[in-house]
Amino acid sequence: MPLNPTAASLHAATLRAALLVVGSEVLSGRTQDANVQYLAGRLGEIGVPLVEVRIIPDVAERIVAAVNELRAAYDHLFTTGGIGPTHDDITSECVAAAFGLPWEPHPEAWALMAPRYAPGEFNAARQRMATMPRGARLIENPVSIAPGFSIGNVHVMAGIPRVMQAMFESLAPRLPRGRPILARALHSPDIAEGTLAAGLAAIQARHPALELGSYPFSRAAGRGVAIVAKGTDAAAAEAAIAEVAALIASLGGSSVPGEPAP
Amino acid sequence: MPLNPTAASLHAATLRAALLVVGSEVLSGRTQDANVQYLAGRLGEIGVPLVEVRIIPDVAERIVAAVNELRAAYDHLFTTGGIGPTHDDITSECVAAAFGLPWEPHPEAWALMAPRYAPGEFNAARQRMATMPRGARLIENPVSIAPGFSIGNVHVMAGIPRVMQAMFESLAPRLPRGRPILARALHSPDIAEGTLAAGLAAIQARHPALELGSYPFSRAAGRGVAIVAKGTDAAAAEAAIAEVAALIASLGGSSVPGEPAP
Repeated sequence: MPLNPTAASLHAATLRAALLVVGSEVLSGRTQDANVQYLAGRLGEIGVPLVEVRIIPDVAERIVAAVNELRAAYDHLFTTGGIGPTHDDITSECVAAAFGLPWEPHPEAWALMAPRYAPGEFNAARQRMATMPRGARLIENPVSIAPGFSIGNVHVMAGIPRVMQAMFESLAPRLPRGRPILARALHSPDIAEGTLAAGLAAIQARHPALELGSYPFSRAAGRGVAIVAKGTDAAAAEAAIAEVAALIASLGGSSVPGEPAP
Repeated sequence: MPLNPTAASLHAATLRAALLVVGSEVLSGRTQDANVQYLAGRLGEIGVPLVEVRIIPDVAERIVAAVNELRAAYDHLFTTGGIGPTHDDITSECVAAAFGLPWEPHPEAWALMAPRYAPGEFNAARQRMATMPRGARLIENPVSIAPGFSIGNVHVMAGIPRVMQAMFESLAPRLPRGRPILARALHSPDIAEGTLAAGLAAIQARHPALELGSYPFSRAAGRGVAIVAKGTDAAAAEAAIAEVAALIASLGGSSVPGEPAP
């Protein structure tokens, strides 16, 4: 049976990233993940679009398998979570195992961390945060010192959003960049997706290098549909959005450029 | 090299679920997913813990491959997103392709939807929402009519949180149930994870049927660490949390039962 084709251009981008969230607390519903959205936005800006996220528990064999699968499939793999000092923080040693590398004290991390503690307080648990796959390159943590690291194309970061964001911004300048992914949007409070669908598909077909998405929303500010054109060519995205505005007008609806109010 | 063992008991639960988020808009950072947390909490309550989430784009081959991998690996697979009327809504036909089933008008869905529209308005785009894998069982949508469906162990739901939640609650009574996953927590404003780590590992070792997690937090209300014991045995979880409270006190810290204020 034929599958409805959809614009897959972004997903064939030159550089593509995946994110592995090591997070039993996200899978139990205790924690609302906040890292996916931040990384997704920033990775789009630097032209390394995020094309897969996996959330798995803090279980060694699951982490090792996911790291190996995702680092082979994508240009960059980011991980968040599981690099603290407690027994459930096992991401670092699992990444070492995935690469088949020794997991050993990292001299630079050790030198950063050890002087921060009173005598005797840089204990075995905290020493684990300075233990990394051999050859790891540190990712600076200006918030709470204990660094993340890169090994090969895998970038291991903390799970606490404020720390993760600081780590990502430390790392970003040394990541290879692609063309930034741009988005242009408009929203309509008074057109139904089902009315718009045929015309929208025709516009998508005329712009195969863009990804045209339709997102109904229902918020305190009202209901409606948001149309988003994404791609690397701003003029093309603007042209497609102008065609969508004309389509909506031709169907008797109205539209406003930009995102709907949150 | 030895991998630090962690309690994997929940992940060996009798019934286990995965969630596939079909969501280019989540991967671009445009939308903050809200479905993972809701489903994670509800699935824990009915004893079918969520043990993997994948977020992938609205690209046919990616959806087909992920559905086949996850439905084989877990007892239940839930999907959210991609079942509207527009060109980028392709989850339904991809699930049919994954099962090797015809994707065809579903008489019951058709009968629900067709009468809702004025003559001529149940157009080709809207008819797609009543087109499903042969043999699908509907999941009622009390919010906006267009139903989801179950086929085999795969449950296909909408992406809009309010609609997804209504669909899940329609579906829940017919899902097989396991023992509910319970959590007991305490938080401490004045103990460091690195101080607690060794004692916590010992408590985890004494309670192999529980999953003991340590989650540092940094919020407007203050910083600290939350310790969570999860499992199916409330008395065991309470006992473990009491041991953690005693450990924290022995290290000169204080703790309060329950979650930290958000």
